[in-house]
Amino acid sequence: MDERVHAEVRRIADEIGTMEIRGAAAIAEAAARALRSQATDSETTDPEAFKSELRAAARMLYETRPTAVSLPNALRYVLRGMSSTTVEGLRQDVVQSADDFCARLERAQADLGQVGANRLRDGDTIMTHCHSTDVFACVEAAVEQGKHIEAIVKETRPRLQGHITAEALHEMGVPVTLIVDSAARRYLNDVDHVLVGADAIAADGSVINKIGTSGLAVNARDRGAPIMVAAQTLKLHPGTMTGHTVDIEMRDTEEIIDDETLAELGNPTVKNPAFDVTPPRYVDAIVTERGQFPPESIVILMRELFGEGTTEPWAEP
Amino acid sequence: MDERVHAEVRRIADEIGTMEIRGAAAIAEAAARALRSQATDSETTDPEAFKSELRAAARMLYETRPTAVSLPNALRYVLRGMSSTTVEGLRQDVVQSADDFCARLERAQADLGQVGANRLRDGDTIMTHCHSTDVFACVEAAVEQGKHIEAIVKETRPRLQGHITAEALHEMGVPVTLIVDSAARRYLNDVDHVLVGADAIAADGSVINKIGTSGLAVNARDRGAPIMVAAQTLKLHPGTMTGHTVDIEMRDTEEIIDDETLAELGNPTVKNPAFDVTPPRYVDAIVTERGQFPPESIVILMRELFGEGTTEPWAEP
Amino acid sequence: MDERVHAEVRRIADEIGTMEIRGAAAIAEAAARALRSQATDSETTDPEAFKSELRAAARMLYETRPTAVSLPNALRYVLRGMSSTTVEGLRQDVVQSADDFCARLERAQADLGQVGANRLRDGDTIMTHCHSTDVFACVEAAVEQGKHIEAIVKETRPRLQGHITAEALHEMGVPVTLIVDSAARRYLNDVDHVLVGADAIAADGSVINKIGTSGLAVNARDRGAPIMVAAQTLKLHPGTMTGHTVDIEMRDTEEIIDDETLAELGNPTVKNPAFDVTPPRYVDAIVTERGQFPPESIVILMRELFGEGTTEPWAEP
Amino acid sequence: MDERVHAEVRRIADEIGTMEIRGAAAIAEAAARALRSQATDSETTDPEAFKSELRAAARMLYETRPTAVSLPNALRYVLRGMSSTTVEGLRQDVVQSADDFCARLERAQADLGQVGANRLRDGDTIMTHCHSTDVFACVEAAVEQGKHIEAIVKETRPRLQGHITAEALHEMGVPVTLIVDSAARRYLNDVDHVLVGADAIAADGSVINKIGTSGLAVNARDRGAPIMVAAQTLKLHPGTMTGHTVDIEMRDTEEIIDDETLAELGNPTVKNPAFDVTPPRYVDAIVTERGQFPPESIVILMRELFGEGTTEPWAEP
Amino acid sequence: MDERVHAEVRRIADEIGTMEIRGAAAIAEAAARALRSQATDSETTDPEAFKSELRAAARMLYETRPTAVSLPNALRYVLRGMSSTTVEGLRQDVVQSADDFCARLERAQADLGQVGANRLRDGDTIMTHCHSTDVFACVEAAVEQGKHIEAIVKETRPRLQGHITAEALHEMGVPVTLIVDSAARRYLNDVDHVLVGADAIAADGSVINKIGTSGLAVNARDRGAPIMVAAQTLKLHPGTMTGHTVDIEMRDTEEIIDDETLAELGNPTVKNPAFDVTPPRYVDAIVTERGQFPPESIVILMRELFGEGTTEPWAEP
Amino acid sequence: MDERVHAEVRRIADEIGTMEIRGAAAIAEAAARALRSQATDSETTDPEAFKSELRAAARMLYETRPTAVSLPNALRYVLRGMSSTTVEGLRQDVVQSADDFCARLERAQADLGQVGANRLRDGDTIMTHCHSTDVFACVEAAVEQGKHIEAIVKETRPRLQGHITAEALHEMGVPVTLIVDSAARRYLNDVDHVLVGADAIAADGSVINKIGTSGLAVNARDRGAPIMVAAQTLKLHPGTMTGHTVDIEMRDTEEIIDDETLAELGNPTVKNPAFDVTPPRYVDAIVTERGQFPPESIVILMRELFGEGTTEPWAEP
Repeated sequence: MDERVHAEVRRIADEIGTMEIRGAAAIAEAAARALRSQATDSETTDPEAFKSELRAAARMLYETRPTAVSLPNALRYVLRGMSSTTVEGLRQDVVQSADDFCARLERAQADLGQVGANRLRDGDTIMTHCHSTDVFACVEAAVEQGKHIEAIVKETRPRLQGHITAEALHEMGVPVTLIVDSAARRYLNDVDHVLVGADAIAADGSVINKIGTSGLAVNARDRGAPIMVAAQTLKLHPGTMTGHTVDIEMRDTEEIIDDETLAELGNPTVKNPAFDVTPPRYVDAIVTERGQFPPESIVILMRELFGEGTTEPWAEP
Repeated sequence: MDERVHAEVRRIADEIGTMEIRGAAAIAEAAARALRSQATDSETTDPEAFKSELRAAARMLYETRPTAVSLPNALRYVLRGMSSTTVEGLRQDVVQSADDFCARLERAQADLGQVGANRLRDGDTIMTHCHSTDVFACVEAAVEQGKHIEAIVKETRPRLQGHITAEALHEMGVPVTLIVDSAARRYLNDVDHVLVGADAIAADGSVINKIGTSGLAVNARDRGAPIMVAAQTLKLHPGTMTGHTVDIEMRDTEEIIDDETLAELGNPTVKNPAFDVTPPRYVDAIVTERGQFPPESIVILMRELFGEGTTEPWAEP
Repeated sequence: MDERVHAEVRRIADEIGTMEIRGAAAIAEAAARALRSQATDSETTDPEAFKSELRAAARMLYETRPTAVSLPNALRYVLRGMSSTTVEGLRQDVVQSADDFCARLERAQADLGQVGANRLRDGDTIMTHCHSTDVFACVEAAVEQGKHIEAIVKETRPRLQGHITAEALHEMGVPVTLIVDSAARRYLNDVDHVLVGADAIAADGSVINKIGTSGLAVNARDRGAPIMVAAQTLKLHPGTMTGHTVDIEMRDTEEIIDDETLAELGNPTVKNPAFDVTPPRYVDAIVTERGQFPPESIVILMRELFGEGTTEPWAEP
Repeated sequence: MDERVHAEVRRIADEIGTMEIRGAAAIAEAAARALRSQATDSETTDPEAFKSELRAAARMLYETRPTAVSLPNALRYVLRGMSSTTVEGLRQDVVQSADDFCARLERAQADLGQVGANRLRDGDTIMTHCHSTDVFACVEAAVEQGKHIEAIVKETRPRLQGHITAEALHEMGVPVTLIVDSAARRYLNDVDHVLVGADAIAADGSVINKIGTSGLAVNARDRGAPIMVAAQTLKLHPGTMTGHTVDIEMRDTEEIIDDETLAELGNPTVKNPAFDVTPPRYVDAIVTERGQFPPESIVILMRELFGEGTTEPWAEP
Repeated sequence: MDERVHAEVRRIADEIGTMEIRGAAAIAEAAARALRSQATDSETTDPEAFKSELRAAARMLYETRPTAVSLPNALRYVLRGMSSTTVEGLRQDVVQSADDFCARLERAQADLGQVGANRLRDGDTIMTHCHSTDVFACVEAAVEQGKHIEAIVKETRPRLQGHITAEALHEMGVPVTLIVDSAARRYLNDVDHVLVGADAIAADGSVINKIGTSGLAVNARDRGAPIMVAAQTLKLHPGTMTGHTVDIEMRDTEEIIDDETLAELGNPTVKNPAFDVTPPRYVDAIVTERGQFPPESIVILMRELFGEGTTEPWAEP
Repeated sequence: MDERVHAEVRRIADEIGTMEIRGAAAIAEAAARALRSQATDSETTDPEAFKSELRAAARMLYETRPTAVSLPNALRYVLRGMSSTTVEGLRQDVVQSADDFCARLERAQADLGQVGANRLRDGDTIMTHCHSTDVFACVEAAVEQGKHIEAIVKETRPRLQGHITAEALHEMGVPVTLIVDSAARRYLNDVDHVLVGADAIAADGSVINKIGTSGLAVNARDRGAPIMVAAQTLKLHPGTMTGHTVDIEMRDTEEIIDDETLAELGNPTVKNPAFDVTPPRYVDAIVTERGQFPPESIVILMRELFGEGTTEPWAEP
């Protein structure tokens, strides 16, 4: 471990790694704040050392969850801001970039929410999977537009993030029905929109989201229910433009079954992938803060935002 | 409650109701045994009273789980055997019928297992949902045929019957991978057969099985994996021939979430259907002890077995 | 034209031809009654001449609407009854057969209605096309079972039989929404069952029904709405067992457009097929008075009812 | 009603409202002409009053048919032209803009026709729904390229715009077959292209067109017939980029059934939606005057043409 | 090798093995003739030895092509005929059974042809794969019914049996277009029926036929062309009723590529499966001499013909 | 024939015409080299005559294979470079442009290979059709990334380009399995990616490639195998932006069957289309040297590269 990285950065890295900090926007904001704190706390007087420290902090943060696509985007944004030649100037650059980033981030979700809310109609019932603040933003904006929205919430094994969703929607005044994941198909005929977030969006239009999303989308299409993905542009994964696939994190088996029970069952292999990949043909629209897009054309937005460069700014030169 | 029904019958009725006795074959066998014990323990000396007692016992058993289609079939079989005119003769009839029924039942599963095993090939990987002794019979017969079979087992929320399956397959020497229900689609490309049981089969070829089966079947079809249902003819639901639908049991919400957590989430509605309905177009074959059938022709087997009569033998004349 | 055929038969043949008598059951009943009147009015004293007269009457009736599959079935049933050797005996045979046929026919629809009603649930909305008394029987039985049923009725160009349906359902107390045929897809998400009749059912499971049925069925499948066909066994077309296809009647162009308007448009070709063919993969169940069947197994019922013979009893030997 | 709006504008607004002026291009052109006449007839001498008058005229026009997406586009184009500071200058601006707009509009259809004609091959049979001058432009250009084209024309209940289409195609020398809407599926196997216009195109690639289009498209896909939509860029609906859905006009029930007949049927509810929504997965290409596009990428063309602004220029500041 | 088996039987076995004798009917007839010659040439005087000889001959024949399902059916039929107790009697039994079998076989194809022809209409174009005399019978009967039929014939690599088909159809006066297998999809829009034979039909409705059939069927469904399988009941595989799968013969690689070329390419693995399996959902009808059936109900015909017995009559007791 | 065109150009034109030079990149490079040689060998002293000579050479080359979309692109590139006013200057322009083009071309394939390789994972099995150096580049780059790749190679009748592919992949160390085209579906469940090249890509996202590609793609989708198309931007066909369809070359029938055999079969018509058209809905991604794209958005890349102009630079002014 790189000793130049401060305790606050380590704490945040830790919280990202243990999923205490969860959700793409929260992770991105935390990463930006972490770099900001590294900058404000830095005691070095050498500009190159300062930059190297920041890169080291970025690398540590990056490595906590390489599949969390918002993380590198936040890091890129903040590091790219370092243009001064003095330590004090660089410190100001980082503070400014991080603050900018967080401000943009906050507005993005509200704008996205407005777009998503426009797709919902008064009286609609949505079905959700997992927990996504982008989804919350859509529903909240719809409620603020005076629309009555109801929700069927999948509990989302193994971590039951559906509970978080149920509570948040309840607080918005949305009547919630909670079901196990397996019951989704049975209720899809009552649903006007499947509305989920995304962990990452690939250039081929695939949506990488919490395990179970793709199976839900296939059933929603079969039942005639449209599928809407709410995802800030932060989730667009630049590496996929050059064909890279998004690695799927395999999480701890204890999330699924405790070791004692496991032994009783004869110690089967347990596989606990965090995400799956939904092909674009099962998604009707991706809602971003820049408007809505069919998944097949999101690559064009990626090209606008990221151009074609792919080197990572936290690599040591 | 009808006081003529003996304690042993009540105990069995209770165990069926609480799902201590679980699985269609176990329920049917228990029901047959219950009627047998009612007969052997009866102290009446009036043949009509004896028959009425048996009908009362059958009614009590029937009402414990009206969706468990094997239950009425067992009851029909045993009650239909009562043809004698003396109490002693009727007692012998019931003992004989119940013993016959159980003997047939035992052989049925082995025969079914053989048919199912013939569909499996050496090296195949199956995916299962919930817990079904008919499925076990197929896999066991395949293993005895010297075939190497591997299994991906869905845990099957909310009651985690996948654990029972994982343990049973492990004991047959089948390597098991345990996953949450939402991860099924991700592993379907590695699967040669989806192999599930059934709670009931309807005349229109629909398969009523543990909640989550239909969503799995739709995804299996999408991924090109064939779907095999293992179901003894006991599961063929005679009432569906005249258009009756199979009622889906709504189970206790505490299976999904405890009351305290529920309150914390703002007391959302919780829906906990025990089963769902898979249309025949998503099923490749139904494997029974009478051979295999496409689901669309199972109605013909039903007509052979049940004719067109629909009155229930436990109704008081 | 055969002069031996009486005026009453001619009148009925006429009314079948002009669609004054409409619907498979009405046609079959009228045909049976026509043969009965030919028998009671016959003045011949030669048994062979009597039989030849009846065959001539049957042929004339048959030729009025060769696609109305119930017509030959009624004729077969009544003619097959002629087994006596005297004119008086033959007359009684025909009277008896015709009366039997009509009695069976009446019961058939009620039984079918019961089966169809069992598939409907309280609160269901159905969508119908054209006008079918078999459909009415299902809805009526459901209403009598105490179920609240609503209906979306397609007007069914060009002859607007949807108006007859709307009125009939209204009289049963069913709230009706009337739409043009093109609006069907838009309302399919609100529909629990598409429920249509049939003009004929083929051995390969195809359903021949009013033009527009197949397009509706394809959209219903796409929207996740099940499709139920209500058809007495009278509609099972025996000729299709040996591969014969059902001829589709091309009706008068004036049903679509009057000649003056036609001339104004430059006299385009007008095509006015009365029926179309829905493949079995778009139908969930065929409801008959003998129970319900997946369309793929209806051929088995045909084999039970008609065996494998194919000569027509009205052919002169 | 705003008294500053002149009679000619009111007359045109009226004709748009009663569908005397029909078809997106005709509406747009009329709207441009209306604003032009308001400008030439204006008697005010205050530039601000002049602009306010024009906005009032635009608002009145806009409100006649809010779903006619070409209407706001025409209004935007003409109003955006007002940059002068004197009444006379502003008048010239409006005249110039309106004339420009109409010139562009005229060329657009010819260019679109060329693109659409290039997709057609000699000997092709098309099927059309409703009445669209963009479709006519494609067919006319194909005929001018020396291709023999035949057409199957759906009558398009309730307003029978298919008659207009039949006549127009006949005048181009195209042999026409006229059918009721329900007969479409039966003839789709003879069809090389389904070719329809659009009332609006949404950012998610959906095509809003005359009721019946979506059901036709689903059947065309099922039958293997490609679906081409001919739509000038005028039909691209800017509001949908931010998630707004296109309101579907519910038209008078008398278009479907007269009040007397309605009463005879027991006064059923009648629903008469003017349009429906075809998802992009059922459309093969959208043909515009800027070339052809898969529906999933039309959003990119919308972004080129409209940017991301969404305020309406006829709103009072 | 069993020396009791005569030279003529060995010759026939050889010709079956080398595919000199090809096609299910030809194989079945040859097998029946082979057993007949074994019986007429036998010199034993011991009835048991005679029967054992016949079983040995049957075993040898059976083993030449275990996937040719007609072979065991022919053998079953002939051996089952042996009921006499003297050698001379047994010889007569075998001669009689073999002659019967061949007579039935001949009639079967004509009857099947009639059924298949009824499904074809005047002016239809069929597409065929490989070479099937059952297909020829359908086309021939259609031509004799006065229908004009055209054919698109796939060459059917690697053995180019399409050439046999092209020649045979040409001789019936059917205009033929010959294409490579890969060109099938391109011409499916011009096709009214895909018409193929079968090597075996399984109880689950699957059709086992020449490699390439399943890929053709999937494309035919996608293009809206119905798929008809012509298969005498001889092709119904009794073993599949108890779940057995049909083994797919892997043929010599030299059929695909000669050894020298193979070496030049670096000796890749070559796989040459003779058949593939088409699931019932891609087949519209199976045409047999007993009428037509949807593939999903063919199991019922199998149950009628074969009951539920599965021991092979050529096994030594 | 134009006598100003030099022998070297004619030789290259010839080799393109006879398919001695094969594959889009090879053709494009040869065409560029041909123009270069025409320029270096030219003996004219009149700049206009020089340009006219070059245009004549370009026309001759263009006409050898009008469906080879890379050919006009190469010609456009080189001719567009002629901006000087002297013969010597023009000669230098052409040499420079041709060299540039070839250098770009070479890099393009490597870049494309990298993108395609990123989509492949260690252990993947691909299935290919025909012969494509763009496909080779993807596999080669994957192998260089240390991934183990296996390949199933379709022989690709009639010209058996699969042999070239088998050999090339073998030389990269990729284990190859060779199959006939008809066997593809049987092995699709073992395949992780279908990977094919393209002859042309149309603006509507269609992929024009060797006959058999579309049927393979439909089956791959049905089996759940993703389809990747490797195609340099050279294959994007500018004419399709304005709706032009890509003409499908009909090749010599002797590629399929020799004349003698043809006569023996009764001289059937033989159709030998070189290519077919795969609709975008059956393609998951198009891999280019500019990154990967869903086929539905490739039109946007075409607009970037070609704008909207369509006049051909080799036309005489």
